[in-house]
Amino acid sequence: MQVTRIDQIAIAVEDLDEALEFYERAFGLTADYRERVDSDGVEEAMLNVGGVYIQLLQATREDSPIAKYLAKNGPGLHHVGFGVDSVADALDHLRGEGVRLIDEAPRPGGGGHTVAFVHPKGTGGVLVELVEDGTTH
Amino acid sequence: MQVTRIDQIAIAVEDLDEALEFYERAFGLTADYRERVDSDGVEEAMLNVGGVYIQLLQATREDSPIAKYLAKNGPGLHHVGFGVDSVADALDHLRGEGVRLIDEAPRPGGGGHTVAFVHPKGTGGVLVELVEDGTTH
Repeated sequence: MQVTRIDQIAIAVEDLDEALEFYERAFGLTADYRERVDSDGVEEAMLNVGGVYIQLLQATREDSPIAKYLAKNGPGLHHVGFGVDSVADALDHLRGEGVRLIDEAPRPGGGGHTVAFVHPKGTGGVLVELVEDGTTH
Repeated sequence: MQVTRIDQIAIAVEDLDEALEFYERAFGLTADYRERVDSDGVEEAMLNVGGVYIQLLQATREDSPIAKYLAKNGPGLHHVGFGVDSVADALDHLRGEGVRLIDEAPRPGGGGHTVAFVHPKGTGGVLVELVEDGTTH
């Protein structure tokens, strides 16, 4: 298995509008697009920085993983997205290596991509999202 | 001020050798180089993923920021590095915007780069390293 690129750095924020205003004012970065992903209970804004996204994530309901993360840790770095040719193949490989997964099968994520999450207990504390290159569905 | 690129995603690890073995076995990623930065109390390995580094950071002494981070949080995502044309200009800009800094002036970092850290209390919980493009010193 080969990670081909960094797809995204995801950051949990309390207020997406405030965070977007800050990233523009402080760092000169603006969102390419904004999307609500109801299956994950998030609204996200994607700031393209030379082909890598900074993904700002706001919870849209109290039981969403981002809401729970914010309640426990406060805002900050949440996960990293690794681009792969095939999420299904990557999951098979990781399963074979005994790496603990969150998603046992590929599923739809934001931006029309096929994704799956790997458990931080399997990766040395880093929540990893596998993102299939060039996929739309 | 304009962030031009993502320079690095930095991850605190307990054991650098074990982490390198895991990243190769799980994700097919290997280190371009490994460096000890005594001023920061770290040994780091840089895994180049399409021009963005995954930086694995191990503490080399008990009073290093990474050792303190690990003691408090365990291993995981530690900071993100943003490429800028001039760290000095970026610090001036952020100071003018009232953003809390860790380093008030540019200083030498790993890989021969000029760097400065921005305080997570100034950025919505994200420890940000400013990395000057193409600098060696």
